[in-house]
Amino acid sequence: MLFKDHKQLPCKNKLGQQSYVATMRCFHFCKLPGRVMGIRLLRFTSVVIIVLLLVAGALTALLPTIKDDKLPNSRREPKTQSQSALDSFTLIMQTYNRTDLLLKLLNHYQAIPHLHKVIVVWNNIGEKTPEEMWNSLGPHPIPVVFKVQTVNRMRNRLQNFPDVETKAVLMMDDDTLVSAHDLAFAFSVWQQFPEHIVGFVPRKHISTPSGVYSYGSFELQNPGFGNGDQYSMVLIGAAFFHSGYLEDFQQQPEAVYALIDETQNCDDIAMNFLVAKHTGKPSGVFVKPVDIRNLEKDTNSGYSGMWHRAEHLLQRSYCVNKLVNIYGGMPLKYSNIMISQFGFPNYANHKNKMLFIA
Amino acid sequence: MLFKDHKQLPCKNKLGQQSYVATMRCFHFCKLPGRVMGIRLLRFTSVVIIVLLLVAGALTALLPTIKDDKLPNSRREPKTQSQSALDSFTLIMQTYNRTDLLLKLLNHYQAIPHLHKVIVVWNNIGEKTPEEMWNSLGPHPIPVVFKVQTVNRMRNRLQNFPDVETKAVLMMDDDTLVSAHDLAFAFSVWQQFPEHIVGFVPRKHISTPSGVYSYGSFELQNPGFGNGDQYSMVLIGAAFFHSGYLEDFQQQPEAVYALIDETQNCDDIAMNFLVAKHTGKPSGVFVKPVDIRNLEKDTNSGYSGMWHRAEHLLQRSYCVNKLVNIYGGMPLKYSNIMISQFGFPNYANHKNKMLFIA
Repeated sequence: MLFKDHKQLPCKNKLGQQSYVATMRCFHFCKLPGRVMGIRLLRFTSVVIIVLLLVAGALTALLPTIKDDKLPNSRREPKTQSQSALDSFTLIMQTYNRTDLLLKLLNHYQAIPHLHKVIVVWNNIGEKTPEEMWNSLGPHPIPVVFKVQTVNRMRNRLQNFPDVETKAVLMMDDDTLVSAHDLAFAFSVWQQFPEHIVGFVPRKHISTPSGVYSYGSFELQNPGFGNGDQYSMVLIGAAFFHSGYLEDFQQQPEAVYALIDETQNCDDIAMNFLVAKHTGKPSGVFVKPVDIRNLEKDTNSGYSGMWHRAEHLLQRSYCVNKLVNIYGGMPLKYSNIMISQFGFPNYANHKNKMLFIA
Repeated sequence: MLFKDHKQLPCKNKLGQQSYVATMRCFHFCKLPGRVMGIRLLRFTSVVIIVLLLVAGALTALLPTIKDDKLPNSRREPKTQSQSALDSFTLIMQTYNRTDLLLKLLNHYQAIPHLHKVIVVWNNIGEKTPEEMWNSLGPHPIPVVFKVQTVNRMRNRLQNFPDVETKAVLMMDDDTLVSAHDLAFAFSVWQQFPEHIVGFVPRKHISTPSGVYSYGSFELQNPGFGNGDQYSMVLIGAAFFHSGYLEDFQQQPEAVYALIDETQNCDDIAMNFLVAKHTGKPSGVFVKPVDIRNLEKDTNSGYSGMWHRAEHLLQRSYCVNKLVNIYGGMPLKYSNIMISQFGFPNYANHKNKMLFIA
């Protein structure tokens, strides 16, 4: 039996000098209250320990697998690794030939609440980024990363940047200023609609008797679903959307990339098609901006943006029809929901003629 | 064997006079095509029939139990027995001492799109309903049911009326006129937020350093979550909500009914507590009304509504605190989402200073 020879006591440890003490301790313990009982106690204890280990092992096997959902499928809050990844967003701003505007906007956007990081997609091929200047004027509230591009492509901003650590992306054109109040509110709205493009610029398509679609805004006829107008897209040049859609965008048919490259346009329309297909619902949620400004007139470069091209709008109608061909159908859906912030900027902006308090 | 004695043929029926014919029929059949084969065929047929019955029985047992989800738990479309039950709503209007207003409003509401039925909760105890007059002025677009009450209680309108066949209920005070446009839009919003109270009258509670809550509207301080104001309740006197909440309301603590009866008030606050507890989210979604009118000045009865009582608002603060005690906590949550209809009533009511088209 185990305790007859104290040299074989389980208390024997690696350090020689303590073995005598250990041995004596065990020997003493093992003598309580008698040899036979000690053996039974030891066996009982061993059995208990083994059973506990087995139970713990079984429980571990039964623990639910924690899956990090890349894209939300419902109104559940998206799971994230850290609190900040859920409560903050990454600003992605593509820039071409308007570095003065870019820097002006960076000064504004770097201080937006809940901003985690800025990614500048540098489409000025061969030109040095203003990174040195940026660093020399530090410190800054958040990091800015300059992603130097090799080809000047509209769809460069839709790459699946590994720098994005947040679930939410805020995409802004490099000539658009949206107030911090609008952005903070729209971000909170996105958190309630994480599978949608939540932004400030609504657009729509309409179908015509010939079956050919046309693209436009409120100047086009209403789609004819009850009162008022409808929108079927929210442009990504001023919008929040889930970073998972950047990953999704990499898996689109080649024809989509060809179309965007051919027109240097329509990446935002393609994104709306993608999101509508994914959700089966209207792709966007429109938040009415209080203070949104276009700064293009302020640039020294003289460059005034792609949308001034003569063919710009016709191209966008063309894109809608091409994308319908590519995707084998029209996935865009209409919405007439317009969201504003309760009680801001005007105290009691919701007041109605029923001026009674009850 | 069974068919040797034709008196024991299974074809024997209860009516004596037909038994001979039945017997002859069976006898003839059994003779085809020879006694041995007939027996084998019969046995085979019996076995097949028994096996089929057993299989059918087993399949019936395996059929999934069809459960009609009374309350939605997510943004899924609620299941209904018929399309109309999902696409229409039931108007519940409680009335006391303002029959002239009631009839005026009935003429308006009977023609609201998607209305399925009207339930008038008749709190004029002992007084005849205007049902005869209503019928004499038919036909009407939809049925109206007058529910005669025995006691004049505020919470009579929150009974689980079996007459409600739709998933949605529209509850209106008997002095409130909301335009058809507002109602049609708010109903479409409710269909996207079926677990919320979607309506036109937002209110809030605020907490104070003492821990005592106070009830009010925009005249109270903002709750202090960022910019602007917040609301934590949407009053049911002009709102859509899921009919399942009427069933839920029957299962509340007795103290809730006692409170409402004691004050003849606060049934709407209690409903918001119920919904907030159920969803764990803000109970209401506020839709900004374009045209909502209070008609109480128009009544001939001289009766001007409970909210004119001196103690009305103090009672409502009292109710908030009592309900927190009853439910063991404050379930109400804040929201600052204000929903309006895109492009209605003003064409391009979403237009912003960025007057460019792209």
